[in-house]
Amino acid sequence: MSEHFVASGVVTVTTDFGHRGPFVGTMKGVILSRHAQTQIVDLTHEAWVHWPAEAGFWVARSYHYFPRGTVHLAVVDPGVGTDRSVLLAVGDGHAFLAPDNGLLAEVIEATGAEVRHVSDAVIDAHRLADTSATFHGRDIFAPLAAALAAGRLAPQSCGEPTRDYVPSIIEPVEQRQGQLCGVVITSDHFGNLITNIAASELAALRRPVVHAGGHDIRFLRTYGDAAPGELLALVNSFGVLEIACAEGHAANHLGLGRGAPVRVGEGGND
Amino acid sequence: MSEHFVASGVVTVTTDFGHRGPFVGTMKGVILSRHAQTQIVDLTHEAWVHWPAEAGFWVARSYHYFPRGTVHLAVVDPGVGTDRSVLLAVGDGHAFLAPDNGLLAEVIEATGAEVRHVSDAVIDAHRLADTSATFHGRDIFAPLAAALAAGRLAPQSCGEPTRDYVPSIIEPVEQRQGQLCGVVITSDHFGNLITNIAASELAALRRPVVHAGGHDIRFLRTYGDAAPGELLALVNSFGVLEIACAEGHAANHLGLGRGAPVRVGEGGND
Amino acid sequence: MSEHFVASGVVTVTTDFGHRGPFVGTMKGVILSRHAQTQIVDLTHEAWVHWPAEAGFWVARSYHYFPRGTVHLAVVDPGVGTDRSVLLAVGDGHAFLAPDNGLLAEVIEATGAEVRHVSDAVIDAHRLADTSATFHGRDIFAPLAAALAAGRLAPQSCGEPTRDYVPSIIEPVEQRQGQLCGVVITSDHFGNLITNIAASELAALRRPVVHAGGHDIRFLRTYGDAAPGELLALVNSFGVLEIACAEGHAANHLGLGRGAPVRVGEGGND
Repeated sequence: MSEHFVASGVVTVTTDFGHRGPFVGTMKGVILSRHAQTQIVDLTHEAWVHWPAEAGFWVARSYHYFPRGTVHLAVVDPGVGTDRSVLLAVGDGHAFLAPDNGLLAEVIEATGAEVRHVSDAVIDAHRLADTSATFHGRDIFAPLAAALAAGRLAPQSCGEPTRDYVPSIIEPVEQRQGQLCGVVITSDHFGNLITNIAASELAALRRPVVHAGGHDIRFLRTYGDAAPGELLALVNSFGVLEIACAEGHAANHLGLGRGAPVRVGEGGND
Repeated sequence: MSEHFVASGVVTVTTDFGHRGPFVGTMKGVILSRHAQTQIVDLTHEAWVHWPAEAGFWVARSYHYFPRGTVHLAVVDPGVGTDRSVLLAVGDGHAFLAPDNGLLAEVIEATGAEVRHVSDAVIDAHRLADTSATFHGRDIFAPLAAALAAGRLAPQSCGEPTRDYVPSIIEPVEQRQGQLCGVVITSDHFGNLITNIAASELAALRRPVVHAGGHDIRFLRTYGDAAPGELLALVNSFGVLEIACAEGHAANHLGLGRGAPVRVGEGGND
Repeated sequence: MSEHFVASGVVTVTTDFGHRGPFVGTMKGVILSRHAQTQIVDLTHEAWVHWPAEAGFWVARSYHYFPRGTVHLAVVDPGVGTDRSVLLAVGDGHAFLAPDNGLLAEVIEATGAEVRHVSDAVIDAHRLADTSATFHGRDIFAPLAAALAAGRLAPQSCGEPTRDYVPSIIEPVEQRQGQLCGVVITSDHFGNLITNIAASELAALRRPVVHAGGHDIRFLRTYGDAAPGELLALVNSFGVLEIACAEGHAANHLGLGRGAPVRVGEGGND
């Protein structure tokens, strides 16, 4: 599974920095200073602050829409300045670079990626001369991403392969009393609630019904199949269970957010 | 008017997806996967949710700031997953791609564009292998935009020219009892209220006065010509009537938003 | 100090336009129409509205993360449409373009930049044919930035060097009664309060303690060195004093914002 990485020159950037201030911009400046031809794409900068799980969830489900050889840089880094290490994973022909805090656990498992802690020697060879204590995204990760995207740094020179990395902080979906039990990972701009329950896990149910926020919610194929204002559940465009409100805002409607429990069981007869 | 389209390699993207999650990012990934040299520019991703009128308003007034041969992709798509078709319009040397829901009506009329419904055969030849029911922006529109931007897909091969497309949901500006009657389309980051009343329509008035939200508002040339806190009307940088509040926030000041009626009449003597 | 400018083809864009509407997008369209190869990077578009100080603060501290030869275009322009002039500064091998309203004062002083008011002749040679009264960012600044980035416009042809430009509206940090007195310039997405007090100014203090919002706040090296919920002060990644709240939101916690006074004095014995 751990396919060879051949740099495409594309770098995606995922952070929890928002859009105020020059934080993302200076990361891009560092990348372009090191490799002028890089094509940089923002995945999102509004990942949940200090919560690597959402960023990791999206990277795991988004990377394959980019060219093989893309470097996916994700910096949600509550431990910046402490001694957490820098993780590099190569899987499915893509490279993933992030703090070792659970962010990459899901994509590593999904792709069977080969994982390395980037060695101090490699970090020191690439970091900015005046590395700060609080912005490794710009000072350490961006130079490494540029070197990988330029094809100047080979993943295998970054350290020994290891299986020792911080696991995801999200519990995997569990089966309890005939029901699938998962959680809300995030909501989108439309207020749709996005869970960690995969379409493949739902396949075992003949007539699934979703229980969340005290409501029983039926499955439909798409938003337009529900009446305006109606709650619905669907398999969304990233292959996971989503709770929506047709022409409405499910997160506000249900008062649910990140971490809220969602159960799916077998529906009644009809 | 319907000038030949020669791809420049630039694609603009306009959506109502906001900046949370990887929705816009994965559209760009698909475009770069299909045509690595594309230059992608965000027009805005904060168009009014599920309301194609604002996105269409901006595309019609923004496209000509881009190089001829640009593909303008706009996805505000409340009908995603239903059988609304994919519209391709070519006018003034630019290509416009959007759901057939009224979004493109204004730019089609303004440019005399040649319009086609993209045929199922063309869609099937370009769509992602695993097209979702809820994210055609990424799965259908992005691949088509990439093919157009690469010059690999000629507009004339997408279908027969037609005049059959969904009209704008915005009523055109009307003359009633000597007054121009329009509506607020949107507000900007500064709280300026932007209407659909064009400078050319105002030209007939000798001394125009704007009536909105119970106020009579006088015309000035620019924000700096008003006293701090004063309401003013002006022809904005996109050629339409705008209501502003000098050093203030007109939308909050007046309590007006999208769809609010705005009338312009002849002012009194002076 | 005023090093020769050799265009790198990179343009950064800093504005207070936010992300609604096609304002930033059409600026990019104009740049690409004039110089198709430009690499455009957003620094931020959420600078404080109508307050050039924050934009100037960030440009002065961010420019050197970009390749030499970058054009830094910053448009926070409350005086648009009035007769404020267009300022071009070249320092440290970078070019800076902004309204003459104090925005560039800090970077000019930091780099010893050579400053010019762009002449009417040069403006007229580059501006859009139908320049608006209210959007010079798109109609005047973007074409000038493109010409500079393309290497088609030499800074020295824009006008005579001058020392006559609008100074910063921010008071420099002062020493009063043994304390450094500065102000909060802005807060970031995490609620960290960012001040204008530089690390170099703090060096004279043996055991600095920060006084802000009625709290005495101690210095630490990084966020992780504080207990959750604890206020801390640190030298941030842009070399200035920042007040943070570990795993919290200092701006909300302290109720402070732009312009709030911050003092740093010598701490007591321990």
